Amino acid sequence: MLSKNEVKVIQSLCHKKQRQKEGLFIAEGVKLVEEIIQSDYRVKKIFATEKWQSESNPKNLITTVVSDDELARISSLQTPNQVLAIVHQPTSTELPQISRNLTLVLDGIQDPGNLGTIIRISDWFGINQIICSHQTVELYNPKVIQATMGSFLRVKVFYAELKSVLENANVPIFGALLNGQTVYGISKPEEGIILIGNEGQGINKELLPLITNPITIPKIGGAESLNAAVATGIILSHLCKV
Amino acid sequence: MLSKNEVKVIQSLCHKKQRQKEGLFIAEGVKLVEEIIQSDYRVKKIFATEKWQSESNPKNLITTVVSDDELARISSLQTPNQVLAIVHQPTSTELPQISRNLTLVLDGIQDPGNLGTIIRISDWFGINQIICSHQTVELYNPKVIQATMGSFLRVKVFYAELKSVLENANVPIFGALLNGQTVYGISKPEEGIILIGNEGQGINKELLPLITNPITIPKIGGAESLNAAVATGIILSHLCKV
Repeated sequence: MLSKNEVKVIQSLCHKKQRQKEGLFIAEGVKLVEEIIQSDYRVKKIFATEKWQSESNPKNLITTVVSDDELARISSLQTPNQVLAIVHQPTSTELPQISRNLTLVLDGIQDPGNLGTIIRISDWFGINQIICSHQTVELYNPKVIQATMGSFLRVKVFYAELKSVLENANVPIFGALLNGQTVYGISKPEEGIILIGNEGQGINKELLPLITNPITIPKIGGAESLNAAVATGIILSHLCKV
Repeated sequence: MLSKNEVKVIQSLCHKKQRQKEGLFIAEGVKLVEEIIQSDYRVKKIFATEKWQSESNPKNLITTVVSDDELARISSLQTPNQVLAIVHQPTSTELPQISRNLTLVLDGIQDPGNLGTIIRISDWFGINQIICSHQTVELYNPKVIQATMGSFLRVKVFYAELKSVLENANVPIFGALLNGQTVYGISKPEEGIILIGNEGQGINKELLPLITNPITIPKIGGAESLNAAVATGIILSHLCKV
């Protein structure tokens, strides 16, 4: 049974300000919540249907059992899926090591679905660190978390001022542009940064001079551009292929 | 000024049944509507703000001028963008020629954003014909049309019973699977079908025996799968690269 106050708390966590204040975020669905429970993340509270409580609940955690109607009321999903968890945000850590690594750097990705999908792509290709500009959508936005399909548990996502990150990187910086070298001919770098720009505006002007290796996906047909997540997938598939 | 009846007509076109009955669909936004006006598509009616009417309107078409509030009321976009058009669906044509062409075949893509993005990718890589199973989301769903970013004007999309299409194709059929040959080593086919399955279920069981060339995107990290549109982008970039 849901209290009015619980509904209010969950709804408040749809707002970035409140998520940051409380250090919490929301995750939903059988698969995702179970992956979180099995991870190092600390779960604060679980709301689940009777079915989840009796058939799933891998560590037998204390659960507030809710009806399907109650779940629908607190869920952000089109099709609510048995369980919603309130999870602690891990305390933020120092920026990752850039040398001897591949790092994905995102300059102002705005769409939550795109960021989540990019984290999932990064995970697929074994890139486990992403640095985002402060203008990039927040990791703990519920739509980002859901779109990662659990990959945020394996890929570390940081936020930083990109200019100083790139200036101090001392590794090749591959920037996705419309007029770079074709991405098809490049062999896998041992270390480097792959820089992806905003959906509409591309990479920020002040970062352009810091790109050492401009790359591009050659266009054959008529479309003006590719979706940012799709472009990231194509670039990583060519740069990371073994 | 919008009449109640006009609002009702526009809202009714959010439903597939009504779109099919009327042979109409909706497109929104300055860029998309202008591309449609410049194309062979027949525009039935335009609703636009004073700004669009005076600054854009490339062919000086008759427009129902609406206020920002009125546009917000009929728009499906989060940020309505000056203009909404009701457009005639072209009368459907025969299936395209499969031989001496590359054809993308979609088996049950469900998410409108994915279908729209796939049409845009297809356009980028110069593949101008797509055949969808009847279980695939409808082309004229407003979310599909918006996600194509105008590429539906250049890529022909057909719906058909896939089994008979594939049985009669007589070209290589590349099927995206989790356990095929790596897509990295394949050289550009002169003709062929590239078959992509449903987001969750993959390719329908009854189509699997018809695949002549099973292909896969090798996984390096931990993600279980890639988004269907991202996978399509990666596969096309490797198969179509010149």
